[in-house]
Amino acid sequence: MRIARFSVREGSPAAGSVSFGVVEGDPSQPESLVVHALAGHPIVSMQLTGESYRLQDIRLLAPILPNKIVAVGRNYAAHAAELGNEVPDVPLTFFKPSTAVIGPTEAIAYPPFSSDVQHEAELAVVIGRMGREVPLERVEEIIFGYTCANDVTARDVQQREGQWARAKGFDTSCPLGPWVETELDPSDLAITCTVNGELKQTGRTSLMVRSIAELIVHISEAMTLLPGDVILTGTPAGVGPLNVGDEVAVSIEGIGTLTNRVIKRG
Amino acid sequence: MRIARFSVREGSPAAGSVSFGVVEGDPSQPESLVVHALAGHPIVSMQLTGESYRLQDIRLLAPILPNKIVAVGRNYAAHAAELGNEVPDVPLTFFKPSTAVIGPTEAIAYPPFSSDVQHEAELAVVIGRMGREVPLERVEEIIFGYTCANDVTARDVQQREGQWARAKGFDTSCPLGPWVETELDPSDLAITCTVNGELKQTGRTSLMVRSIAELIVHISEAMTLLPGDVILTGTPAGVGPLNVGDEVAVSIEGIGTLTNRVIKRG
Repeated sequence: MRIARFSVREGSPAAGSVSFGVVEGDPSQPESLVVHALAGHPIVSMQLTGESYRLQDIRLLAPILPNKIVAVGRNYAAHAAELGNEVPDVPLTFFKPSTAVIGPTEAIAYPPFSSDVQHEAELAVVIGRMGREVPLERVEEIIFGYTCANDVTARDVQQREGQWARAKGFDTSCPLGPWVETELDPSDLAITCTVNGELKQTGRTSLMVRSIAELIVHISEAMTLLPGDVILTGTPAGVGPLNVGDEVAVSIEGIGTLTNRVIKRG
Repeated sequence: MRIARFSVREGSPAAGSVSFGVVEGDPSQPESLVVHALAGHPIVSMQLTGESYRLQDIRLLAPILPNKIVAVGRNYAAHAAELGNEVPDVPLTFFKPSTAVIGPTEAIAYPPFSSDVQHEAELAVVIGRMGREVPLERVEEIIFGYTCANDVTARDVQQREGQWARAKGFDTSCPLGPWVETELDPSDLAITCTVNGELKQTGRTSLMVRSIAELIVHISEAMTLLPGDVILTGTPAGVGPLNVGDEVAVSIEGIGTLTNRVIKRG
């Protein structure tokens, strides 16, 4: 099932209201897509309100508002190598703040303190149940679904500052969407990133150094994962610069495409 | 004003309820302390309910539930030197997750994946208003108050893993409290840390490499600070190990003392 979060556009009696909804139709034909509104939060209840909207009458928002986002660096060997790094002995984990999250219709605002902002296409795991010291064989029980993420990175700031809070945590540096796919085998999915339609990153989730299950064991050994938390699982090779005016699109097989424009910070 | 968050202990008709409150009395004589309950969140309104409690009838909780916690490394030269580090050219910023926060009556649970957990006494700044690209001269406007923090760190994990999400983000690694002092000049306060009554860390906030205002300018240049967010401003020299059974106390002049026991993770 595809779960989106959306606001209703002007012209409807429900204009401005924000809901979750179930997306039906063929994503390759956007005009076929219909969103059936949910009464509450999909992690709690999947009760439909009975109201449905065509995609053009709504605005898709980030499909989840995470309490925390835990990301993993250098989890594809080819990407570690392209930046001259080794694959680390233990997974390299860092946080992105909730204030970095934007949805599929919002723009990446180029931060004025960087001159080398880059795209990093990633598979995002959305947590559905609280998890603490989750054993390998129970990881699936705490996963709600999967979405596309762009771990937007100010590469120059990352290289200048020892820890990555600003380089990977600036406002708009965590696009998520377009929706959460709850029925998906994530073990071998094609993942790509295009900039202005040109293919830049390409990989398969089967090339992750550590699997999703291993990452969740490792992270939850230290910290409690809450419903709605998001795990970013690393980026394949091909990262590169974004410029103001660009359109960057992260596509993951079985999920869909997350597209964001890059604008000057206002 | 001292603003606490608390739950009412058993035996009162209000047992279990959680509120904010204004603390009155002399902290050196705990039996003199009275907490006047607030009707809502103190960042929004300071309206009193008219109910008051003696300290022994309540349990103090973490005085704030931050959306994000931004911490700063190596902001006291003597501490940077004791770990063999240089003071960085730009402030070293990292996040602690909200799931790490505990209050003054809760225990630090020693994480099983570390054998070198250490205390780091720090002045914490609590944000009161949304701030983005805050100029130096307006920093004071977005500060709600100050509290004590312990940036508990798994030093061995910190040294092993390149980014510090697990080393400084494990559950219970961010004690905050005992309350937020809203009327305080933070520029030259004594800060100490004791373990089982023995003095371990001592410093003054005037020894910060970057001032609170400079840190907030630097952080908010990248990311929006939200009401309730917390900034940890670095630790003075004297960090050292904690062991199960220890009692660690962070004291800051003009605020009070934050005491936590260390227990085995259950």
